[in-house]
Amino acid sequence: MKRYGLHGKLTATEGNGDKLSSILLQASELVSTAKGCHLYMVSKDKSDRNAVWVTEVWDSQEDHDNSLNVEGVRDLIAQAMPILSGRPEPGQELEILGGAGLKS
Amino acid sequence: MKRYGLHGKLTATEGNGDKLSSILLQASELVSTAKGCHLYMVSKDKSDRNAVWVTEVWDSQEDHDNSLNVEGVRDLIAQAMPILSGRPEPGQELEILGGAGLKS
Repeated sequence: MKRYGLHGKLTATEGNGDKLSSILLQASELVSTAKGCHLYMVSKDKSDRNAVWVTEVWDSQEDHDNSLNVEGVRDLIAQAMPILSGRPEPGQELEILGGAGLKS
Repeated sequence: MKRYGLHGKLTATEGNGDKLSSILLQASELVSTAKGCHLYMVSKDKSDRNAVWVTEVWDSQEDHDNSLNVEGVRDLIAQAMPILSGRPEPGQELEILGGAGLKS
């Protein structure tokens, strides 16, 4: 079984990186119990303090897409939109083969 | 507490992507119980069938570096070396802020 992974970057307007990461951490709590969610990890890359990375693993792309409908998620998206610097770039799509540490 | 993350790509010589991913999945089993290991995930990117991605989360960079000393890991590296296409590129280093699904 190959799970669906996504590794993507959101870039905040200058100085709003922490605010954006806080919103995404709230999103991770909301989706943590969503169907098919195995990982929703929020991180920063030292090379760009306004960028926040989200690494997700889902049973399927469909489960990922449905996460937008989890209660509260659209509110968080609405909070994030005004502090995003342009459109999010498409993330890197991954076929998860396996490994250690993933929630089963 | 910010954990240390690494998202990196290894590229196999033509036709050896599956062999390389198999070796890396064996590595994930070996390091799964290593000190400070929270995630060692192996995946493929549809856009390059010879590339294998490894996404790791450790308590610290030191714990990551020490994972090379886990019994059996150097044997697996020795198996992988001949089927690698050139040197591995440096991975993307991440400061893990948190999220859902990570082994605590």
